[in-house]
Amino acid sequence: MPQVDTARFLADLHELRQIGAFKTGVHRPTYSPQDMESRRWLMAKMAECGLNPTIDGIGNVLGRHKGPGPHLLVGSHIESQNEAGWLDGALGVVAGLALARAGLPVDVAAWADEEGHYGGFIGSRSYIGDLAEEEIDRLSNRYHGKTLRQALQEAGLAGKPRLTVEKGRHKGFLEMHIEQGTQLESAKLRVGVVTGIVAIRQYKLTFTGMQDHAGGTTMAERRDAGLSAVRLLAEIDRHFPTVCGPRSTWTTGRITLDPGAASIIPGRAEVLFQLRDVDEAIIARIEERLRALVQESNRREKCPCVLEPVSLSVPALCDPAMQKALAEAAEALAPGAWQHMPSGAGHDAQYLARVMPAAMLFVPSINGISHHWAEDTKEEDLALGVQVLAEGAARFLDL
Amino acid sequence: MPQVDTARFLADLHELRQIGAFKTGVHRPTYSPQDMESRRWLMAKMAECGLNPTIDGIGNVLGRHKGPGPHLLVGSHIESQNEAGWLDGALGVVAGLALARAGLPVDVAAWADEEGHYGGFIGSRSYIGDLAEEEIDRLSNRYHGKTLRQALQEAGLAGKPRLTVEKGRHKGFLEMHIEQGTQLESAKLRVGVVTGIVAIRQYKLTFTGMQDHAGGTTMAERRDAGLSAVRLLAEIDRHFPTVCGPRSTWTTGRITLDPGAASIIPGRAEVLFQLRDVDEAIIARIEERLRALVQESNRREKCPCVLEPVSLSVPALCDPAMQKALAEAAEALAPGAWQHMPSGAGHDAQYLARVMPAAMLFVPSINGISHHWAEDTKEEDLALGVQVLAEGAARFLDL
Repeated sequence: MPQVDTARFLADLHELRQIGAFKTGVHRPTYSPQDMESRRWLMAKMAECGLNPTIDGIGNVLGRHKGPGPHLLVGSHIESQNEAGWLDGALGVVAGLALARAGLPVDVAAWADEEGHYGGFIGSRSYIGDLAEEEIDRLSNRYHGKTLRQALQEAGLAGKPRLTVEKGRHKGFLEMHIEQGTQLESAKLRVGVVTGIVAIRQYKLTFTGMQDHAGGTTMAERRDAGLSAVRLLAEIDRHFPTVCGPRSTWTTGRITLDPGAASIIPGRAEVLFQLRDVDEAIIARIEERLRALVQESNRREKCPCVLEPVSLSVPALCDPAMQKALAEAAEALAPGAWQHMPSGAGHDAQYLARVMPAAMLFVPSINGISHHWAEDTKEEDLALGVQVLAEGAARFLDL
Repeated sequence: MPQVDTARFLADLHELRQIGAFKTGVHRPTYSPQDMESRRWLMAKMAECGLNPTIDGIGNVLGRHKGPGPHLLVGSHIESQNEAGWLDGALGVVAGLALARAGLPVDVAAWADEEGHYGGFIGSRSYIGDLAEEEIDRLSNRYHGKTLRQALQEAGLAGKPRLTVEKGRHKGFLEMHIEQGTQLESAKLRVGVVTGIVAIRQYKLTFTGMQDHAGGTTMAERRDAGLSAVRLLAEIDRHFPTVCGPRSTWTTGRITLDPGAASIIPGRAEVLFQLRDVDEAIIARIEERLRALVQESNRREKCPCVLEPVSLSVPALCDPAMQKALAEAAEALAPGAWQHMPSGAGHDAQYLARVMPAAMLFVPSINGISHHWAEDTKEEDLALGVQVLAEGAARFLDL
């Protein structure tokens, strides 16, 4: 069993937490001075652990193990959402350092901009060969509008080559992460072995009615786009539980009534609606019902509804052999205190899973808080998690 | 029967339409240069009709009849919503001029800012003694923030005295207006005798849930404020038809989910909800059901809902004798082509009705369009309307 120096692991996490510290969390937007400082810190730590550090043209930091393989690739991202938590991506990167220190044959990676300040997952996508130069030309910061090219220039990354997958080098990719939910906490469990990363189907529902004065138009005359939207959403709420799976989720994140004034009947309503499940068959079943409900709404209502997909991701299933290794490690180190579970959120692992076996390990989030500076996890859970990760890696590599 | 020069009436309307012309409508925000030009135009027209014009310290223009009474007060407002229609308030003011030209003993008024660029109805409220200096100190433009005091200063109105009701002078107030709906048009009628101006009950419904990541939180764990709002609105939609009156209206003008992002379960939902009826008893019955539905929602849902009144106006009933005079005039000039009907929108008449008998006459709006530059009414309907107004005024005054 590999011996992880958990005290050192926690000390590294706390050291990194000082870079861009914000309240009890961190503020390290992608390519900001704080983010670049954290990348330099990481490269120094990698060297200290005996890895060969490089930073590439998109900001990915890779620390290569100097010894013979088979190797595992271990990591996550190091930038944060604005004024967000200290763990999130940082945890998976620092866990990689801990495994390297424990003598495991691992390469450690910090993928750039998983958090989507510029594009979302552009580091891991670049590494797997899924990010064209034209897309880099096109992207800009979603908060302040700076172009990605300009940001790369200012960060000193412009012109550097981009790293890509080295065929045959890695037996798999491992990512440790906080759960970002309360399932482990409420079940009083300490470790989650991730079965897969859910597919996210994002839709826009647009209802077209007739904008009218709320005083001058009788109920019978109205074509109230907002009311048609409310009725469809209420139908979705009634029907979806009969077709969903045990872990399916659906969310209405925004309802926009146009023009949105007290005395005006909305002529247009727009709904952001999202569906998540790790099982494609369940997603297909729910989508079928969604389309049927939209059709029924179009037969019943005076305001036609158009259902448009905004983005449709596919589920990324975790590698069964890696899951098995992690599950055995969890059972050995925390008997009865772990479970299999899907990841409802997206992670770099979903892109790595396209080119190599990939798996994820979750530790609990206190109160499920995520993407907020108050995000936290008990230190004993962090320490247990990294030990399970190391033991799982060793088992998967047959060490 | 008074002889109205309808050609001159239409010519006046078209002349006024040139001031602040925008496409086929007008843009005359309160106290803007265009609005002040229209007030000066009106004062010149009043003098031409033999009236004594004054403008007061809030911008009200009043043209006083020089002969003996009993007098009627006739008018509306002359400013417009932004980029709005050419008729709206202007129609009622120019109709007053037409009655004066026809020799009727009328004072003609243009009340300032009915459209609420600064406060809403501040001219008619000032005239009936319901606008304190402290409120004038407090108000500012809802679009660009200029204070009302500053606007009055720039318009040359600061320091002028404000006109108020002259006890005993007026037997009543008459306001002609476009319908701002399609009830006359769809019934193929040409005149509406208004029974009263509806009460408007404006509420805010606030639902408090728990903001969470849409991927990390199971359906069972969620406290989705948006979903609780949708469920209550669907219940309102089911229940209100069983308690409403024939002309009741209710409108959800805005739904705000907070934070309003695709992947975040709304922690808070805010709904702007409005109820209108001319009958207080019906309003009371609907409000009782609304409160019951909110209570039921609070028993059933995990996200508590708070119902807050934002503004509660009372209905303004039109004077029965004035209604009778207008109805007889309508039947004489347009037999079978008129109806009694409530006004779903607010008008200056609702404030004048607090201090004297008041009544309103509606003409059809083409396609019900209102508060938009495309607003229009057939010229023959405008001409018929002003004749009915004159005849009704004469009958009410026993001339």
